[in-house]
Amino acid sequence: MQSMSAEQTTDPVAEQIRSVLDGRWADVRQRLRVDEDFPVAVPGLELGLEEHRAATLEAVRALAGTELAAGSLPVDQGGSGDLGASVTGLEMLGHGDLSVLIKAGVQFGLFGGAIANLGTQPHHEQYLRPMADLSLPGCFAMTETGHGSDVQSILTTTTHDPETDELVVHSPSLAARKDYIGGAARDGRLAAVFTQLIVGGENHGVHCVLVPIRDDAGEAMPGVTISDCGPKMGLRGVDNGRLLFDNVRVPRANLLNKYGDIDDEGRYSSPIESVNRRFFTMLGTLVRGRITVGAGAGAAARSALTIAVRYGLARTQFTYPDGEHEVVILDYLGHQRKLLPRLARSYALALAQNALVEKMDALDSGDVTSEDAQRELEARAAGIKAITTEHATDTIQACREACGGAGYMTANRFTDLKADTDVFTTFEGDNTVLLQLAGKGMLTNHAADFNELDTRGAILFGARQVTTSVIERTIGGSLIQRLISGAPGRDGDDALNDRGGQLAVFEDWESHLTETLAMRLRQAGDEDADSFAIFNAAQDHLLEAARARIDRVALEAFVAAIDAAPQGPGRDLLEQVCDLFVFSTVEANRAWFLEHGRLSSSQSKGVIAKVNDLCGELRPHAATLVGAFGIPDAWLTTEMMSDLAEF
Amino acid sequence: MQSMSAEQTTDPVAEQIRSVLDGRWADVRQRLRVDEDFPVAVPGLELGLEEHRAATLEAVRALAGTELAAGSLPVDQGGSGDLGASVTGLEMLGHGDLSVLIKAGVQFGLFGGAIANLGTQPHHEQYLRPMADLSLPGCFAMTETGHGSDVQSILTTTTHDPETDELVVHSPSLAARKDYIGGAARDGRLAAVFTQLIVGGENHGVHCVLVPIRDDAGEAMPGVTISDCGPKMGLRGVDNGRLLFDNVRVPRANLLNKYGDIDDEGRYSSPIESVNRRFFTMLGTLVRGRITVGAGAGAAARSALTIAVRYGLARTQFTYPDGEHEVVILDYLGHQRKLLPRLARSYALALAQNALVEKMDALDSGDVTSEDAQRELEARAAGIKAITTEHATDTIQACREACGGAGYMTANRFTDLKADTDVFTTFEGDNTVLLQLAGKGMLTNHAADFNELDTRGAILFGARQVTTSVIERTIGGSLIQRLISGAPGRDGDDALNDRGGQLAVFEDWESHLTETLAMRLRQAGDEDADSFAIFNAAQDHLLEAARARIDRVALEAFVAAIDAAPQGPGRDLLEQVCDLFVFSTVEANRAWFLEHGRLSSSQSKGVIAKVNDLCGELRPHAATLVGAFGIPDAWLTTEMMSDLAEF
Repeated sequence: MQSMSAEQTTDPVAEQIRSVLDGRWADVRQRLRVDEDFPVAVPGLELGLEEHRAATLEAVRALAGTELAAGSLPVDQGGSGDLGASVTGLEMLGHGDLSVLIKAGVQFGLFGGAIANLGTQPHHEQYLRPMADLSLPGCFAMTETGHGSDVQSILTTTTHDPETDELVVHSPSLAARKDYIGGAARDGRLAAVFTQLIVGGENHGVHCVLVPIRDDAGEAMPGVTISDCGPKMGLRGVDNGRLLFDNVRVPRANLLNKYGDIDDEGRYSSPIESVNRRFFTMLGTLVRGRITVGAGAGAAARSALTIAVRYGLARTQFTYPDGEHEVVILDYLGHQRKLLPRLARSYALALAQNALVEKMDALDSGDVTSEDAQRELEARAAGIKAITTEHATDTIQACREACGGAGYMTANRFTDLKADTDVFTTFEGDNTVLLQLAGKGMLTNHAADFNELDTRGAILFGARQVTTSVIERTIGGSLIQRLISGAPGRDGDDALNDRGGQLAVFEDWESHLTETLAMRLRQAGDEDADSFAIFNAAQDHLLEAARARIDRVALEAFVAAIDAAPQGPGRDLLEQVCDLFVFSTVEANRAWFLEHGRLSSSQSKGVIAKVNDLCGELRPHAATLVGAFGIPDAWLTTEMMSDLAEF
Repeated sequence: MQSMSAEQTTDPVAEQIRSVLDGRWADVRQRLRVDEDFPVAVPGLELGLEEHRAATLEAVRALAGTELAAGSLPVDQGGSGDLGASVTGLEMLGHGDLSVLIKAGVQFGLFGGAIANLGTQPHHEQYLRPMADLSLPGCFAMTETGHGSDVQSILTTTTHDPETDELVVHSPSLAARKDYIGGAARDGRLAAVFTQLIVGGENHGVHCVLVPIRDDAGEAMPGVTISDCGPKMGLRGVDNGRLLFDNVRVPRANLLNKYGDIDDEGRYSSPIESVNRRFFTMLGTLVRGRITVGAGAGAAARSALTIAVRYGLARTQFTYPDGEHEVVILDYLGHQRKLLPRLARSYALALAQNALVEKMDALDSGDVTSEDAQRELEARAAGIKAITTEHATDTIQACREACGGAGYMTANRFTDLKADTDVFTTFEGDNTVLLQLAGKGMLTNHAADFNELDTRGAILFGARQVTTSVIERTIGGSLIQRLISGAPGRDGDDALNDRGGQLAVFEDWESHLTETLAMRLRQAGDEDADSFAIFNAAQDHLLEAARARIDRVALEAFVAAIDAAPQGPGRDLLEQVCDLFVFSTVEANRAWFLEHGRLSSSQSKGVIAKVNDLCGELRPHAATLVGAFGIPDAWLTTEMMSDLAEF
């Protein structure tokens, strides 16, 4: 650990902040930072496709002995069961070749997660150890060419054959083809296939069945047609492929049967009667993959910011009026505005992500057990994944541009950061669909049986129940309440100059959007109402409300993390970064605050000025603020910084 | 032409609109659309680097006989001198492999443009024909590793040696290395090298000298060290490289001597006395490259929109409440909002680009000659390049996301569209620097001798002159005036519901931003003022003003193009698209309009509602609107559309 901190930074303020950002699994992060075998490396974009894929598989195999794998394995299977450690370790992989993160996430998070959460003890005993030690490379075959977001409508069928007591897996059309499946093209042996389950002639909805797709020699199993998705924008190390099943027979025991089973007499049964509710319950247990994608996106954005801020501190362009000295580009207000508000938002989202992983871990380990908590976790995970991946795309782009032509050279990392993260806004849930899921959570807090309904139905149903929105404080509830109560009032001129006032402003923003959304949607309950048209006309309103919710959650996470930090210059700096997050968020949304009488014109202009001021105040601390991300220098070497050192 | 329209579309409304979008060089566009030898092709991303570069050179060589090359060659050198045709042809290349566009742009636009505009008759006679027929592949060596935007501070020196009457070209440091130079790594023979010119011990500022970098066998010339920039994010077919000169000697005649010459006695002379003014005049003549980049970015954005809109019209996801029919994704408001306002903006910018090319052509052909017109062209070209390339980056990203996982597959084109256009926001002028150049134009309309000053100096100087901003209407002046005069008034509730009122609103927006900017900057003239600090504090204001200016120019171009179009359903549809451009632009900037009392809260909310309404109204015409871009189907084949056809 000493070698790490010697290599990394000797800035004590950065160290103070780092320990706040590192969160509960700080020890995991610190161990991985100095672990020379941890497969974090600049992607080998010079490799051929096959070599890149092989190297990626080897990198994931190298993780088999680490806490990333052990955390994904329950204690009764020889693992640590420390899911938070596993996801935190995956997040650290996000600073390297993202192909390794994604391939590891597919194996441990999606394939392993499906077996752990949808299967029962016999499946755990048979499959989880080989999953964790990579002797059984798996696939997670959910998406089809015709249906991605709408999993409930997938076309693959699995029919129970009472004659042989087997399951017959079949792809009836090209639209039913499993598509973009990680591991399918090259390495996967066993696929967790999502499919309509037909028993006794009746469709019981989507279930998951384990289907061997390759034999030990690597040849496709009979009836399984495998093809390669071919070249992709990025993630070259991940062997995405396509699967078509031609009446493939597997034993009945291959049904992951926690939420739906077939007995010896060929009768279907489930602990959850409603098909819809069963579907959403099953999918909800798979939240881990979504949380990992958000984690990786956040890490990639922090890598990009670290590179761009350091470049901005070393690169000069144009001279001061004295005609002699050149201006360091981060001294330009325009450059500060490009990087520093995004830096502040990265802090907020990293802390919100930490809180999310803690909640996931608590639910997984049984420390917290309630359907409400699980539902809240799913909604929050959906929203944070959407906002963090969107933020990553936006931030990496801004950082590339902030490094000019040098940023376009592959040796300076933005090539892989951009190309690899691009699909994060899409996979594990399209962001628009996920924001609707987050929005559903806002409207259904008080609604019974929302699980009976699809997302649109649940939102419309929930809207009928909501009249006054009650903010569900998920992080630091009593602290937040105390700060809000002590605030001078949300309408006063000083509302935004006090942390409690800021919290109140964010809560009010979310509440008002939620209540007015509910009012609009309530018409859908009228007789003869065209419920699709009413829902659709309010879609932009729904998405805006979900965004406000996640920004509020992120602010609460930020405030709670500061509150828990020891006094000192690190904490003082965090307070300023939090301010920049608040003011730049209000600035970006100030039209809403103006339209709804929350800000006067002069207050609104004051918000812009305050963002400029905070950029100037944080500029001298920029190196500290990226140093606090704790990304070892060796993980972020670039040619442009070596060049600048030679000038 | 019949075969084209048969292949392309049989939609007569799309044809009407296409003829408006095609503009003055419609005949060039139509010929190229059906020219089977025109090298527009999906980039061969499966090729090895060397093969891709070789194919790109061959594609550019194939252009030697076309109007792209002929237009870049003056009539007295056997060309057509039709610069507008050349740039329009390059724009059409923007629908294919952008490496071909960029390599052609370097050869015809930058290398050829430097010789044509900075050289004199002997240079024209010796070099322009081999430039145009590709027997002399050239480079444009301006940017250095240490100085990109600040060309005036480049470090390469060229010293006149009176003993031998030669020029000695030298790179004194790594910072002086010529970097990212297209053609340097593989193909270039002769480089137009920008360098400080030292004659008689005095530095006369930046000039351009022709330096042979490779011999006929392709070997580096003595004293020239060539290296390859290595892998880039995109534009794989362009052989970007680096050049270091170690006291390389060339004849005095290799100085491009239009704006600065050395006589037989070794004395320097120039028609422009001021070093600053000379520099900005020389650079101003090179505007063609910048205009070409904007043209290509616009074309790439239209390719992306065409693909994404067609996919959005064919792809379904989730069912209507009837549970049977699936919803076409472009029927979702969220999807419409992702694509249709960007479509409207693409129209506006395409028409502004057409007007810009017309003005450039008029100036080049001598139909218009005035320093003011040249200056206005440069400022407008800078702004339109910045806004169009930013728009392309944003739009291509949105289109990729709108196509979900399929958008991530290379076979569906977004891989190359994203990676290749990414650097457009940087090269030929970083967008932030270019917006400042556009802003300079707003403040220096009435200032004498602004060319004496650098951009920052000119802006500060101009600010002292401006009290009431006079909008410089560059397109359709009398028409615009007539419409504004007939408008019901900018403050009325209906201001935005009338074209004249919209124009007035946009002009007022720009004027107010300009006048208040001038007020802020005027303090810099005070004694003891820290002029850098004052300029820097207003940088975000300056950038915002420049954006408003370009949006106003784009609206005027849109209005003028509609006015010139024949009556009919095509024109009616254009009116609606123009409305969407206006309302979505006001929506995006509505915080400003609220803060400055231009919109009330309820009017502002009405703008949002109006955007939603217009999206719904244009949705049935979406296929027509992308069909009107006139991009032949064969140029935009994708795997995902073939897949959907098989469902």
